[in-house]
Amino acid sequence: MITTLAGGVGAAKFLAGLQLVRRPSELVALVNVGDDFVLHGLRISPDLDTVTYTLAGAINPETGWGLAGETWAAMGALDRYGGESWFRLGDKDLATHLYRTQRRSEGATLSEVTAEITRAWGVGVRLVPISDDPLATVVTLLEGGDVDFQDYFVRQRHDVPVAAIRVAGADQAAPAPGALEAIAEAEVLVIAPSNPIVSIGPVLAVPGVRAAVEAARERCVAVAPIVGGVALKGPADRLLRELGHESSVVGVARIYRRLCSVLVVDEADAHLRAAVEAEGVRCLVAPTVMRSPETAAALAGIVLDAVGARPGRG
Amino acid sequence: MITTLAGGVGAAKFLAGLQLVRRPSELVALVNVGDDFVLHGLRISPDLDTVTYTLAGAINPETGWGLAGETWAAMGALDRYGGESWFRLGDKDLATHLYRTQRRSEGATLSEVTAEITRAWGVGVRLVPISDDPLATVVTLLEGGDVDFQDYFVRQRHDVPVAAIRVAGADQAAPAPGALEAIAEAEVLVIAPSNPIVSIGPVLAVPGVRAAVEAARERCVAVAPIVGGVALKGPADRLLRELGHESSVVGVARIYRRLCSVLVVDEADAHLRAAVEAEGVRCLVAPTVMRSPETAAALAGIVLDAVGARPGRG
Repeated sequence: MITTLAGGVGAAKFLAGLQLVRRPSELVALVNVGDDFVLHGLRISPDLDTVTYTLAGAINPETGWGLAGETWAAMGALDRYGGESWFRLGDKDLATHLYRTQRRSEGATLSEVTAEITRAWGVGVRLVPISDDPLATVVTLLEGGDVDFQDYFVRQRHDVPVAAIRVAGADQAAPAPGALEAIAEAEVLVIAPSNPIVSIGPVLAVPGVRAAVEAARERCVAVAPIVGGVALKGPADRLLRELGHESSVVGVARIYRRLCSVLVVDEADAHLRAAVEAEGVRCLVAPTVMRSPETAAALAGIVLDAVGARPGRG
Repeated sequence: MITTLAGGVGAAKFLAGLQLVRRPSELVALVNVGDDFVLHGLRISPDLDTVTYTLAGAINPETGWGLAGETWAAMGALDRYGGESWFRLGDKDLATHLYRTQRRSEGATLSEVTAEITRAWGVGVRLVPISDDPLATVVTLLEGGDVDFQDYFVRQRHDVPVAAIRVAGADQAAPAPGALEAIAEAEVLVIAPSNPIVSIGPVLAVPGVRAAVEAARERCVAVAPIVGGVALKGPADRLLRELGHESSVVGVARIYRRLCSVLVVDEADAHLRAAVEAEGVRCLVAPTVMRSPETAAALAGIVLDAVGARPGRG
């Protein structure tokens, strides 16, 4: 089993590569649910859906989120009412939220619904929400108090200064069934190139998860989500700085040093190898920008090799 | 003010005619909400939406419900999951439910949301849900126990024998703001050609409504929803029989005799005039099949004239 701690787009691309070098049935992704929220009464799980749609080959390749060939009739009609249309829900994508909401109202857990949804898409990787309990990443703005993550991320386009991030509900949350086992029993544990603060952070905030990852440190490889000091997507670089970290692979190494024994950094950051290793983490340099499933597969092969695991679908 | 007790399709057609002979701003419809339900987490109000879309000229003329020019991408995508797709929600129609659900979650009452939705569609008639409190028409099947109204009506296509109908929540419900006043102050009160049991029944079940209608009996005109012994749409004829009534305009007269002083019946039932009047209700014979807004307008004119009110938009 190879287990990946996952956020949204970056993790999805990595997993799409990983499933080219290892059988999907050997792969588990423990996915962030701190971004999950309720809008229009619908339960929306952005990271689970991004990973699902990506692994199904159905993602919109231009945006990295949502479905390819999507239509927007519902959002267009919502404009008539002046409704909340800042979070764009395509017509087909809506079906996923309708289904999840209906099944949750019938008593199914998020894990159970996620298994049903991934099965319907023919996704072989096992996606496990890090918790079936509600988590909510809360963003405290430098000016303006607390807002929900999606308000910050989508409505305000992560274009406002952040004073703090916390994961509400984490104290009371339990890891989803199988999550801790998937860490403990993993041949390789991967921290995907996702935002360390708002994607991997909520995963680690669930009681028991951080300790389980620390116990698996020697088998754990992280892929840096920062290339040349900037995030390829999203606000990771800005958030790192605003919250007192260094927006570089060295800053990432400091955050992950107790969790992983290897950090894979991009060739653009080759000059920082010694600085990373000074943090006590072995540093591998490789192309990390996943322009295609094939480049992602090459990266996945390097990650496996880093801790002595072998690619191979045999 | 002319106030109409309203269900779905039949009432919507009548009101579309009425707004051709009286200014919409003079018209109020007190609409059944016993059919309202939650599906996929969305709050759906079928009768309110049918009346709204019809008065806006946006109804699908072939089905009598839903929007013209609708698309079905969300329902099609839901089939992938084997989700609950028996209640067909078009993509544009979904926006209405998304908006209503969002606004209710923000604390708006159903009356308030209904006013917002009708305003967005440019509907001049004031639509008032008979109650802002939850009502649920429960159908007890002869075989199979209790089911929700939409389960009976849509999923089972009202093709199963019914033992009883009750309106859950009616005891605790209050009339919506303005509802009783709209009855008491009406120049003419109309009972639309809707199902007496499952459309008008829940309206009358809200405490205070039946007494208010009885007090307005001399100004109240009902239009029979049964023509030649059968319902033009839906299960009214079958339900009347199954619940011990006569499926005829005479049966309708018996149900409404204390509520209205006039019953308008179709020309097909002209031979039942004396039998209707034997129930203590004046019987007018007129074409009641509303094939167009113009025929509905002619019917509306006859209804107004029956109690001495005049058509006229002046």
